[in-house]
Amino acid sequence: MYTRVVLVEPEYEGNIGSIARLMKNFELNELWLVRPKAKLGEMARAYAMHAQEILASARIVDDLPQALKGVSYVVGTTAVSARRSSNLKRTSITPFEFANIMASTSRRVALLFGSESTGLSNKILESCDLTVTIPASSNYRTLNVANAAAVVFYELFKARGNAERTFIEEASKQDKYRITRVFKKLSEETRIPFYKQVLAEKALRNIIARTLISRREASLIIGILRKAADEIRRSRKASS
Amino acid sequence: MYTRVVLVEPEYEGNIGSIARLMKNFELNELWLVRPKAKLGEMARAYAMHAQEILASARIVDDLPQALKGVSYVVGTTAVSARRSSNLKRTSITPFEFANIMASTSRRVALLFGSESTGLSNKILESCDLTVTIPASSNYRTLNVANAAAVVFYELFKARGNAERTFIEEASKQDKYRITRVFKKLSEETRIPFYKQVLAEKALRNIIARTLISRREASLIIGILRKAADEIRRSRKASS
Repeated sequence: MYTRVVLVEPEYEGNIGSIARLMKNFELNELWLVRPKAKLGEMARAYAMHAQEILASARIVDDLPQALKGVSYVVGTTAVSARRSSNLKRTSITPFEFANIMASTSRRVALLFGSESTGLSNKILESCDLTVTIPASSNYRTLNVANAAAVVFYELFKARGNAERTFIEEASKQDKYRITRVFKKLSEETRIPFYKQVLAEKALRNIIARTLISRREASLIIGILRKAADEIRRSRKASS
Repeated sequence: MYTRVVLVEPEYEGNIGSIARLMKNFELNELWLVRPKAKLGEMARAYAMHAQEILASARIVDDLPQALKGVSYVVGTTAVSARRSSNLKRTSITPFEFANIMASTSRRVALLFGSESTGLSNKILESCDLTVTIPASSNYRTLNVANAAAVVFYELFKARGNAERTFIEEASKQDKYRITRVFKKLSEETRIPFYKQVLAEKALRNIIARTLISRREASLIIGILRKAADEIRRSRKASS
């Protein structure tokens, strides 16, 4: 798995340096900074210790889209695991679960960390394919960003070591999109209240985003759902 | 499990403060400092953030034996996992293994972290009941002490039962089974060749088995699939 570490508006040099060091500790090497509020000076270098090369090759960009070029899967980290129950999009998984899902894919992943004072914005979090939350005390959920990175990188490193190399020819983004689209068509045929259709569609999209699905599996399921929608339409026409 | 965190000759205020914060994040509260080389000043307090009480109640002692009074099990952390093969004592276990061993004991444990520049001495490590090493890159094994603490505290917190699925109220086995059953019924209505139905059903079962699905998501999807099957049946009856 290719993993790009993206820090969004980091505020402290020390944390940037710390994260560079952690990346070397856990064998990650591509660091991107979006609108950093700290410069990469002496302090960043001090904290980076023996990971100077990672710090020196960090890419600095003006906005998030630039930092996401060339990746196919965007993962946000947040201390706030889930909002209202209606908001299905924001159901986080743990670093352990995340690492185990990622270990067997060949996805190009961007792993986002927010600024020290505000974290990632809701807007960014909602645009992520997946969000990860570190289980922590309900009295104090927010970890320092470098410490949070330590935990997530550690789980990724562990999972890479332990993952069995079962090879799944993974469904493409398009295949996955086709599943949700054909499900949507089917749900329209059911005449279930519209808001429920929308929720169900979101639920399916979330599940699919966090799941490994093979091309073959995707095509089998698409086949059934599409045929079911056709059947409803045809029978209805015949009966009218 | 009672866990006392003992920092042996810590050198930087920032790390002491960071570790206090991490303790609160992961619900540990007893911090002891053996001959600290940094004072607990403004910087320590800044890094401790919302864990001021842990920092303020830290016990400062002159030697390790004083910091080990009242504990029955001493655990050292080290980046150097094993010395000579003859030295059996120094075979480290991972934080994950450590946490899982500890979760089921009522031992009073002291968890030792060494100084930033030298780590724990061999003498101290050899006197420990157990040593723990974080798996990391062979190119750069040494984590910053606060980041190492993050990983170990996180594993302890997870093992205490706090981690698994705290964020998603996961669908039960029955819920998952209901998805496949209702999908099966739907696929029967499609009149797709039987062998394909069986394959599709298997595919879905596999996907579900490897996926995290919440109760809510399961029930939304079941709702659509069931209604779709009903629709086909009803329209067909009406047309015949």
